[in-house]
Amino acid sequence: MFITLEGPDGSGKTTVVEPLKKHLEDEGYKVLVTREPGGTKISEEIRNVLLKKRDEKMDPWTEALLFIASRKQHLVDVIIPALKDGYIVICDRYMDSTSAYQGAGRGLKVNDIDEVQHIVLGEWVPNLTLYFNVDIDVANARMNTRDESKNRLDEENNDYKKKVISGYKDLIKKHPERFEVVDANKDKDNVLKQAIRIVDEKLKNEKK
Amino acid sequence: MFITLEGPDGSGKTTVVEPLKKHLEDEGYKVLVTREPGGTKISEEIRNVLLKKRDEKMDPWTEALLFIASRKQHLVDVIIPALKDGYIVICDRYMDSTSAYQGAGRGLKVNDIDEVQHIVLGEWVPNLTLYFNVDIDVANARMNTRDESKNRLDEENNDYKKKVISGYKDLIKKHPERFEVVDANKDKDNVLKQAIRIVDEKLKNEKK
Repeated sequence: MFITLEGPDGSGKTTVVEPLKKHLEDEGYKVLVTREPGGTKISEEIRNVLLKKRDEKMDPWTEALLFIASRKQHLVDVIIPALKDGYIVICDRYMDSTSAYQGAGRGLKVNDIDEVQHIVLGEWVPNLTLYFNVDIDVANARMNTRDESKNRLDEENNDYKKKVISGYKDLIKKHPERFEVVDANKDKDNVLKQAIRIVDEKLKNEKK
Repeated sequence: MFITLEGPDGSGKTTVVEPLKKHLEDEGYKVLVTREPGGTKISEEIRNVLLKKRDEKMDPWTEALLFIASRKQHLVDVIIPALKDGYIVICDRYMDSTSAYQGAGRGLKVNDIDEVQHIVLGEWVPNLTLYFNVDIDVANARMNTRDESKNRLDEENNDYKKKVISGYKDLIKKHPERFEVVDANKDKDNVLKQAIRIVDEKLKNEKK
C-alpha cells in the first residue's frame, strides 16, 4: 500500500503523518514514513540545486525535471524496497506536487508533466492520495507561525498559491480512483481522525 | 541555423569546432560555439551532481532527466537568445547525446527519451547534426593521450561505448533530414574539411 499526502504548505499534512503512522503500527502494520529527498545523497544534491537562491531565473521545465529526477532516485532507493518488504509507505508529497506546483503554478501543461511522469515513474502511482484541502488564509496563518528561514520556493505570492490549489482541484477530478479529500481547515485532532478513517477504509477494501 | 556535433568521446568533434567557427566567421557569419553547461550557473550545478563520484548508484532516468534539465536551462539562457540575434549556434553535444548515452547506453527506451525531450525542448531541434563516426579503437587511443582526471561518466567500459555507438547509428537512420556523417577516423585536417563542406552545403541550401 503506497499512500501519498498532498496539499499546499500550511495544510497540516506533515503534522498528521507521525500520529497516522503510530495508529497503523498499533493495528499491526509495518509503516515507512518518507519524503523527498528521503536520505538519498543524489536526491539531496538535486534538492540543493532546486532551493538555492540565485540571480539566474530557473526555467519551469528545468525545475519540474529536477523534481522528477529526485523523485525517481528516492522511489528506487527508498520506496520500492520498502513496498517489496511489505511496508505501508506514506510519502509526504509525490508526483501530484509537480503537476500542481510546476504545472498549474508555473504555467506548464499539466498533461505534459503527467506524460513525463508516466514514462519515468511507470507503474509506481500511489494507491491512495490524501488531499489536505485548506483555505489559503488558514494556510498562510499557519505558515506565519513557523520559524524557518525561507528558500527560493517559499517566496511565492498568493497568486501562485491560488494556481497551485486550483491545479490540485483539477487533479482530484482527473483521478477520483485514488484521491480522497480531508477538510484541513479543521483542528489537528479532527484532521487526524479524518485521515485515519480514510486510510482504515482503504485497507479494509484492499483486503476484500 | 542551429548546428549540433555528436559522437563518442575521442571522435574529434571538439577539435574541429573552433576552426569551423573561424571558417564561418571568415565567410561573414556571426557564430556562437557552446556546450552544456555553457556558463549558466544552474546547468553547472546540475552537471556537478551528474559528474560526482559516490557510492550510491544513480538511476538511469535520474541521469537522463538531469541532462535534459541542464539542457533546457542552457537552451533558454544561451542558445535561443543567440539564434534570435542572428547567430549560427554550434553546440557540442545536445539532445542526441542523451538518446545515445542514457537511452542505448543505459538501456532506457530511446522512444521514451525522445518523447520527454520533444515535450521539454519543443521546436528547438537542430537544423543540422554532424555525427563524427569513429571506430572504438581509434577513439580509445585518442582518449588515452588526454591528460585529464576522470569523472563518474568517463569510467565506462567498451561494452557501454559500443551500445552508445549503436544508439547513434539508430538515430541517424531515424532522422536522415538533419544528420550528416563525418568520417572521423581520418586525421584532423581531413575531418575539418569534411565538416566545412557539409556546413557550407547546408547554408547554401537554406538560402535557396
